[in-house]
This record gives sequence, structure tokens and C-alpha cells, in this order.
Amino acid sequence: MKFRRSERLIDMTNYLLEHPRQLVSLSFFADRYGSAKSSISEDLAIIKETFEQRGIGTLQTVPGAAGGVKFFVRVSKEEATPIVEDLCALMANPERLLPGGYLYMTDILGDPSVVQKAGRLLASAYADTKIDVVMTVATKGIPLAYAVASQLNVPVVIVRRDTKVTEGSTVSINYVSGSTKRIQTMVLSKRSLEEGSNVLIVDDFMKAGGTVNGMISMLEEFRATVAGIAVLVEAQQQEDRLIDDYLSLVQLSDVDLKEKTIKVTAGNYFDRLYN
Amino acid sequence: MKFRRSERLIDMTNYLLEHPRQLVSLSFFADRYGSAKSSISEDLAIIKETFEQRGIGTLQTVPGAAGGVKFFVRVSKEEATPIVEDLCALMANPERLLPGGYLYMTDILGDPSVVQKAGRLLASAYADTKIDVVMTVATKGIPLAYAVASQLNVPVVIVRRDTKVTEGSTVSINYVSGSTKRIQTMVLSKRSLEEGSNVLIVDDFMKAGGTVNGMISMLEEFRATVAGIAVLVEAQQQEDRLIDDYLSLVQLSDVDLKEKTIKVTAGNYFDRLYN
Repeated sequence: MKFRRSERLIDMTNYLLEHPRQLVSLSFFADRYGSAKSSISEDLAIIKETFEQRGIGTLQTVPGAAGGVKFFVRVSKEEATPIVEDLCALMANPERLLPGGYLYMTDILGDPSVVQKAGRLLASAYADTKIDVVMTVATKGIPLAYAVASQLNVPVVIVRRDTKVTEGSTVSINYVSGSTKRIQTMVLSKRSLEEGSNVLIVDDFMKAGGTVNGMISMLEEFRATVAGIAVLVEAQQQEDRLIDDYLSLVQLSDVDLKEKTIKVTAGNYFDRLYN
Repeated sequence: MKFRRSERLIDMTNYLLEHPRQLVSLSFFADRYGSAKSSISEDLAIIKETFEQRGIGTLQTVPGAAGGVKFFVRVSKEEATPIVEDLCALMANPERLLPGGYLYMTDILGDPSVVQKAGRLLASAYADTKIDVVMTVATKGIPLAYAVASQLNVPVVIVRRDTKVTEGSTVSINYVSGSTKRIQTMVLSKRSLEEGSNVLIVDDFMKAGGTVNGMISMLEEFRATVAGIAVLVEAQQQEDRLIDDYLSLVQLSDVDLKEKTIKVTAGNYFDRLYN
């Protein structure tokens, strides 16, 4: 069965989007469509151009016999700006204010389209970094961690607060919560992380950074390396923040419980990525 | 700026895949590419044909002034079969056996590509059903719930085992675990679910069905309706199963701790969908 170019472009687009950071050989596509490799090359050139123009991502060509093409998500500044602005507007709604100055974010984190956009932005920042695993802590960070991991084509490991029988044997650590200074526990299944892994830590919210710091201690137990730290929202600048090398999409600059106002600005994402 | 057909097809494919079950007007695409609506119609016919042929999904055309096109994920039996076979093979690895006959599934649930495929299959079964929300229980079901929800274009609500300050006020219920007969608690944030919602319950594993039953009781508290129940894995047929109307991708038919064997077969997915 032969495929026309238009059909190939549609199917290849879907295939590449579903297989980010995976090397796909030209022969694979040539066989799939019963087409010459030269036609496939032309198709890929069109896809690359369109992906870049529309801010979808880019294709990298790996030459040689073992070569092929890899899709990387890459979001342009023009594309990222309205996504972060929308996130800021969502966060600034004063109805989010909860007793104690906490913010209700469950609806934002429950919306797959929001989470996927945020995940694409963060993944875009690490597309060229060697990352083997995304790590997060249960529960709220999980959706964002998956959104990032699916764009990076790596598995997710989830640190828990408690042991569960279905995890098998586990490693447990104690850490100090940055804001409340309370001792807390984190548990990770022994089988879930290989020694020497390069790990991107992802979480929904960072205040003083105690939880992230706990994850870093956990990585030390597994002799794994921190390849990056990315959060959706960081609380207003803390003097005693435990973490300084991280990426954030949104920053709470001022939460006023009395006046019921939340001031939200873009996180350090643009400064770090586009300057 | 004018776009060639090939560029339009690539960008439209990406756009439609990212916006499942959302009505997109022809004018939206016409404006986006500076093209005539008649050209857009032709593009959509090519995309529809290719999507259907390659088992990606389908496009539904809504006629009239307020009309447009909607993408639905729809997996064919031919496409679903190898995905479920792969899942069965993954599950049958005897190294998954944990003390007490539990199975280690964390690696499967941690692999976004596996979870996304499973999510596509389950979403495909409910593409035509009125669903407003996907509900799951923390922690293991969350990734699959998001994978399903993102294909259905609905939010996810997560029932927890414990209260958290960032959830605001909550509704709490007690339920009886089906297999251990222990009384357990479930909590859901009051704001997270609207009265009258049509809810698809998604979970990673179902044994006697106590947890799913707990979620159904929770829905009653919120005056919401169960629109469906979908699980990745069901344990071998339980005589006293509390739930009988559900969809499963994989079934454990026999777990033998002494012989260290796990027998796995396809769940009821094919029977329910393709017969």
C-alpha cells in the first residue's frame, strides 16, 4: 500500500509527537509508507520547518547508517509568553486564598490542558539535557511530572510520604520542612531508581524548598544526580530559601490575606531561557 | 502570511490532537492560515481519512454556522490488540510478585508511554459518552486518570486518603475495603466537583472493588453520576466483587506465590467494545 505525501505528513506528525527524543530511522518511515527514503527526507524537511515556525518543536537529524530523526519539544518565547500570562491570571484569583495563606490550586493542577502546556514549557527547557528520570513527590506534583516526562520520553518516580505494601522494599529519609521546620519522612521504592541516574525534580509548588531539598537527599541515597529542578509556582522570595538553582513558571510576589489579594508575576523561566 | 497545504496539514494535525472533543470552527483554521474555508474542508477530509486509516481517531463534522470539527480518539481492535498483549507480557513478569501476593506495578505506572497508550484505549471506549470529570484516588491511579482525561478533554479530581490544608473544606466518607474488610476513609475537596457531574472513575487496580465502591459513595455525597468505571488491571475474578459494570484492559487470572508464576489475560475490554 502506497501513501500520498499528505497522508504521510499527517501520520508522521502524529508519530513524532508521540515519540519525543526517540531516534526514528528513515527506513522505519520508508517501510511504513512504502516510500523511497528521499521522499521521507523531503517530508521531514517540511515537518521540521512547520514545527519550528509554529512553535511545536524541532527535528534533529542524526546522519549515518544508524541515523534518523528525533523530535524535541521547543517552545518559543512568543508561544511561552501567553501561556505563562494565563497561568498568572488563573493564580491571581483571590478565591484561591485559604486560611493560613495557603492557595487552592487543585483546579489548575486538575486541568490536563493547563498541566500539559506547563509540562511542555518545562520540558522544552530540558530538551537538550541528559535526563533519565523525572522525580516528584505525591500527590500534587504527579500530573505535572508526567506532563514533563512524557515530553522528555523518560519514566517518572514518585516519592511518597508513607510506605505501601505494593512498593516492595523502600528507602526512607527524614528531612526538615523549610517553612514549618518540622521533621518529615519521605519514602521511595528501592527498585524504582537506578544508581547513577540523572534526575529532573519536578513539583507543583516551592516555598522554602524543604521538600525539594528532601528529594535531593533521597537522590544522594540512590547515588543519583540532580539534573535540574523545575516547579510550576514558587512562593514569594524567601530569605532562607534552601534551593537556588531552579526553574519556575510563576511566582507569587505578594499574598495579602487581610486585603484578599494575590500578586502573581512570571517566574524565572524567561530570564533563564531566553536571555 | 499564506500557508501551503502541507504546512496546514501538519499544524492542523498537531492542533486537533491537542484539542480532543473540542469544537474547532472552520473559520478558526481559515484565519490561522489565511486560507479559504473550502481548502480547510479539503484538508480536514484528508486528515479524517488518515486518522481513521492509521487508527489515530476520527473527526466529526458539526454542520451549520456554529459548526466545525471535533477530534475523537478512537483505537481500532487491530491497534488495541498489541497494546494489550504488551501490557499482559509486562504484567506476567514473576519478579513483580511481592509478599502477600501483591504485585509491583510502579514501573509500569511510571512509564508515560505505557500509561498514555492505556489511557488512549480507555478514553476511546468513552469518547461518545457524556463525561464531565475523571475521578481517581491517590496515588497510583493518578497518571492513568490524567492520560484518560486529557484525551476526553475533562478535568481530573483526586480523592485522597487524608486531609490537606491546601484542599480547603472537604467531604469525608468511610468505606469498607472489599478484600481486607477494614474501614477506611476517603476525602474530597468540596470545590473540586460540581453537583450533577457525569463522572468516569479510573483506577490502576481493582481487586474486590472496595475502593471503587468508596468513590461511588463519594459521588452520591456530591449528587454526581457514575458515567463509567475503567481500570488498568483487575485481579482474578472475585466471588464477592462489589462492582460488575466496569472496563478492564488486563486481568490477572492466576497468581501463584509458591510457584512464582503470574497468569495474565486480556481484560473485558475487547468483549465490551468490539463484540
